[in-house]
Amino acid sequence: MSGEITDKVGGRELDLEDSQRVHKVGVPPKQKLSTEFAATLKETFFHDEPLRHFKGQAKSRQLVLGLQALFPILDWGRDYNLSKFRGDLIAGLTIASLAIPQDIGYAKLANLDPQYGLYSSFVPPLVYAFMGSSRDIAIGPVAVVSLLLGTLLQNEIDSSNKVEYRRLAFTATFFAGITQVTLGVLRLGFLIDFLSHAAIVGFMAGAAITIGLQQLKAIAPLISVIFATLFVFITHADMHGVAIVNKIKKGVNPASANQIYFTGGYLLKGFRIGVVAGMIALTESIAIGRTFAAVKDYELDGNKEMVALGTMNIIGSMTSCYVATGSFSRTAVNFAAGCNTAVSNIVMSFVLLLTLLVITPLFKYTPNAVIASIIISAVIGLIDIEAVILIWKIDKLDFIACMGAFFGVVFISVEIGLLIAVGISFAKILLQVTRPRTALLGKLPKTNVYRNIQQYPDATKVPGILIVRVDSAIYFSNSNYVKERILRWLIDEEEEVKANKQTRIQYLIVQMSPVTDIDTSGIHALKELYRTLQKREIQLVLANPGRAVIDKLYASGFANLIGDNKIFLTVADAVLAYAPKTEEP
Amino acid sequence: MSGEITDKVGGRELDLEDSQRVHKVGVPPKQKLSTEFAATLKETFFHDEPLRHFKGQAKSRQLVLGLQALFPILDWGRDYNLSKFRGDLIAGLTIASLAIPQDIGYAKLANLDPQYGLYSSFVPPLVYAFMGSSRDIAIGPVAVVSLLLGTLLQNEIDSSNKVEYRRLAFTATFFAGITQVTLGVLRLGFLIDFLSHAAIVGFMAGAAITIGLQQLKAIAPLISVIFATLFVFITHADMHGVAIVNKIKKGVNPASANQIYFTGGYLLKGFRIGVVAGMIALTESIAIGRTFAAVKDYELDGNKEMVALGTMNIIGSMTSCYVATGSFSRTAVNFAAGCNTAVSNIVMSFVLLLTLLVITPLFKYTPNAVIASIIISAVIGLIDIEAVILIWKIDKLDFIACMGAFFGVVFISVEIGLLIAVGISFAKILLQVTRPRTALLGKLPKTNVYRNIQQYPDATKVPGILIVRVDSAIYFSNSNYVKERILRWLIDEEEEVKANKQTRIQYLIVQMSPVTDIDTSGIHALKELYRTLQKREIQLVLANPGRAVIDKLYASGFANLIGDNKIFLTVADAVLAYAPKTEEP
Repeated sequence: MSGEITDKVGGRELDLEDSQRVHKVGVPPKQKLSTEFAATLKETFFHDEPLRHFKGQAKSRQLVLGLQALFPILDWGRDYNLSKFRGDLIAGLTIASLAIPQDIGYAKLANLDPQYGLYSSFVPPLVYAFMGSSRDIAIGPVAVVSLLLGTLLQNEIDSSNKVEYRRLAFTATFFAGITQVTLGVLRLGFLIDFLSHAAIVGFMAGAAITIGLQQLKAIAPLISVIFATLFVFITHADMHGVAIVNKIKKGVNPASANQIYFTGGYLLKGFRIGVVAGMIALTESIAIGRTFAAVKDYELDGNKEMVALGTMNIIGSMTSCYVATGSFSRTAVNFAAGCNTAVSNIVMSFVLLLTLLVITPLFKYTPNAVIASIIISAVIGLIDIEAVILIWKIDKLDFIACMGAFFGVVFISVEIGLLIAVGISFAKILLQVTRPRTALLGKLPKTNVYRNIQQYPDATKVPGILIVRVDSAIYFSNSNYVKERILRWLIDEEEEVKANKQTRIQYLIVQMSPVTDIDTSGIHALKELYRTLQKREIQLVLANPGRAVIDKLYASGFANLIGDNKIFLTVADAVLAYAPKTEEP
Repeated sequence: MSGEITDKVGGRELDLEDSQRVHKVGVPPKQKLSTEFAATLKETFFHDEPLRHFKGQAKSRQLVLGLQALFPILDWGRDYNLSKFRGDLIAGLTIASLAIPQDIGYAKLANLDPQYGLYSSFVPPLVYAFMGSSRDIAIGPVAVVSLLLGTLLQNEIDSSNKVEYRRLAFTATFFAGITQVTLGVLRLGFLIDFLSHAAIVGFMAGAAITIGLQQLKAIAPLISVIFATLFVFITHADMHGVAIVNKIKKGVNPASANQIYFTGGYLLKGFRIGVVAGMIALTESIAIGRTFAAVKDYELDGNKEMVALGTMNIIGSMTSCYVATGSFSRTAVNFAAGCNTAVSNIVMSFVLLLTLLVITPLFKYTPNAVIASIIISAVIGLIDIEAVILIWKIDKLDFIACMGAFFGVVFISVEIGLLIAVGISFAKILLQVTRPRTALLGKLPKTNVYRNIQQYPDATKVPGILIVRVDSAIYFSNSNYVKERILRWLIDEEEEVKANKQTRIQYLIVQMSPVTDIDTSGIHALKELYRTLQKREIQLVLANPGRAVIDKLYASGFANLIGDNKIFLTVADAVLAYAPKTEEP
């Protein structure tokens, strides 16, 4: 039927009776309030249907499934075999060899003694192996979180005050874990999506530069020694200028649950630092997890992941660990070395255990410069020039966010950089919800398709009819803007029409396809638009309002106000009904 | 051309060559970065083109236009005549008679002596008459702002400490004005749009109830006296139980610029209170102004309005006034009494001046109960039951916001109610940007139109093709959700297909019409979607990407990744190209 009409619009005879046979805009059956509310709740918090596998199962089976959901190792462990272990063993040994020098360096970024870095690569990976759902992530301290934690803690207690500083570090770690578990359990994982990709790219690069510059200070003596050796070959250059790692305490993690501040002024400070560090740690880990899950094509449950990371940090805070998370450099190495499951984390963990028990004192003689080189090579991976170029190409506002975060970290401080990143991200959201796009539509030649005339310069306007598309849900945050913007289009068009002595605008068709929802403020704005148009003797016509919108247009009485014969399925139908007769042959 | 294709999709022969003649998706000409940036800036801050009248005018004319923009009275004053004045005079006298008792009562709500209410109805309306662009608003103290200011000030200084309390009130008024002017000059007026209509309705109703209950306490003695008089007619009931207004100071506004705290601890407190009170005052005034502007069909420039309101409060704070704004009850009376321009405010102002100079002492004998009755009748208008019912009908989330604000004000406090209103408004925005809607599309019978199958139950799916529409710009805040939701649709569909032994899904068409923009995170999510689909041997096809989106699909290389023959102008075109051969006759 529409096919026939199309042909007619295409230039043949117009039969108005036909337009009455046009498919009507569907009004969905009224839902019960409870159903509607439950559906909204589900889409907001349970859109991934975490319980879909539980449906219609026996109670005992549900218990097994529940345990498997909490401890994925019970699931994938059943298929575990020797060939998988071979890959995990090699990967585990590889990441352990990378982890040991990194941990020593990262602990220093956090202003902690080297062994605390090693501790944090022993307990948390073990916990994660049982609870995590990523097969590739390597767990341990990471550069950015260590730097952030070090800066934030130092603001509260000077790190020379070792005991209190350490206690605050454990307190922060504890609350970082609590934050992560809470976000996961309350299914608020989407909150970390508010840190935009661009802002993270900038923040990471800035942190990498900051860390790199810090480490260069350690390398400098070595370089000077090498140069000295080369140029003054005959003189006996003493190596005593090269700093070495301080003594590392031997033995496994001591308990530290009693050191966490559960009362007093440091409780609140630890809590605040923990929330920030926990969020940043989550962001890094989830981003890495998602990337590798996409490469290997398996699903990563964000909320479950948060519970796993949180639990491991809570347990960590009680066993002398500081905030651990998924490490970018080690995860990449883990993946490249052929890991198959989280068992590689267990292998790494055991190597760390042996190291702590047996060979730790040997590391005493590692030159700081070597540690620094390893850290620099690790953080260089955090500077993603390609991503920055892509961001520049795609979205200039994103680029500003990226650069803001980058320069904030490099020239001011880690916190300010973070603040800039979050601030710009929020500004972008505000912009999105307050200033939606609108477009004038025209008819593509030889079709009955109406498109943005700025995108399709060959699209032509229909005389006497102005077609405007609103590209967003109409909510309180933008309803006034949308109304004013539509009127502005109209005024501009009327001026043009007047100047060119064309047909007076008699119909304003609002293409509502992209208007996915409308609220009371939106209806209010539409009513004001309708009243203003009425005074100008212009008819308001709506095309293709969606499911939620048509519902509310009727509920509010607006559909009856403008007359429901003014609501069409497509712009083409509306144009067909109102196109001036001069168009007919 | 599309007409012909339509017919074929309608059941006749499929000619694949035809699909190549289909109109291509338009790639708009690349804009220069500066042009693009300027356009974004303009739409954000200058979408109303405040300078459009200035274009192409001589310098002297531009000066006149500039002055007229700042002082609209210079514009409308030229056409002012006696017949207009008649209306304004009657309206002005009417609102003055209402203003005097209201002002006395409202000053009490703000814990100030009665004359400060009268002062605030003298200077600010005069300033507004010169600078404001509304023809109907009546300026003066209003109930809600007075109550809010009284509560906030009382939290800082006890009102029994009259001098300091008053100084803080002037300080808050000064900064309320500064806030309003700043918002207007920086063109950030859209920030007040973040208070949703529903939240305001609830907040206003709650404030009205609170004020009403306070005033009832004053009326109660009068009622008891009346009852006593009726029932104990013979006894000589003394009227001394009825409280009267305290002494009102005679004379015009004293200067108060020197009383504003520009240093010390109260500076910050005054600033904070001023910002809150200024924003609420703006919200009320702009809402009222817009309503009446729509009724009489003239334009109200929100940003200019803010400058006018702000200036009048700054001047007010230096002449012993507290925060004034557009009053709901008096504006309605002003309109009903036939006001034509802001001259009615000038008339009211002069009546207030005479009152202050001559008859103020007489008001001493007004029973508080009379004042209370007048205030109650004024605030009752703030309870908009009809609006609440409409909100319930249209949007349940809005209703929750409305009720939250209402009960917050009534049962806790004005600030908490306000906080709840703002909080729920923000939560709604977060929901909007993190959880956009998606829909499965089906073909409407006998058309080539594809619509949501939940809205149109007679729409049918195309075998082997899944068509999903994404109903929002894809930004960092929702990109992961969108990707996961699309995959969830796919998994559900595949399960159904398997159960019913239908054609395996081979194509996933994403209808992009409502996707008005995409950022780097969005492109990232699309790439992940593409990779996942590739592994499942499903082709990703896009239909009708908009102007900004197509630009970015090419800039990021995504269009080349999926192949630009996979991007179609309409869903119908895409289906035509990929519909299974079994469909052919």
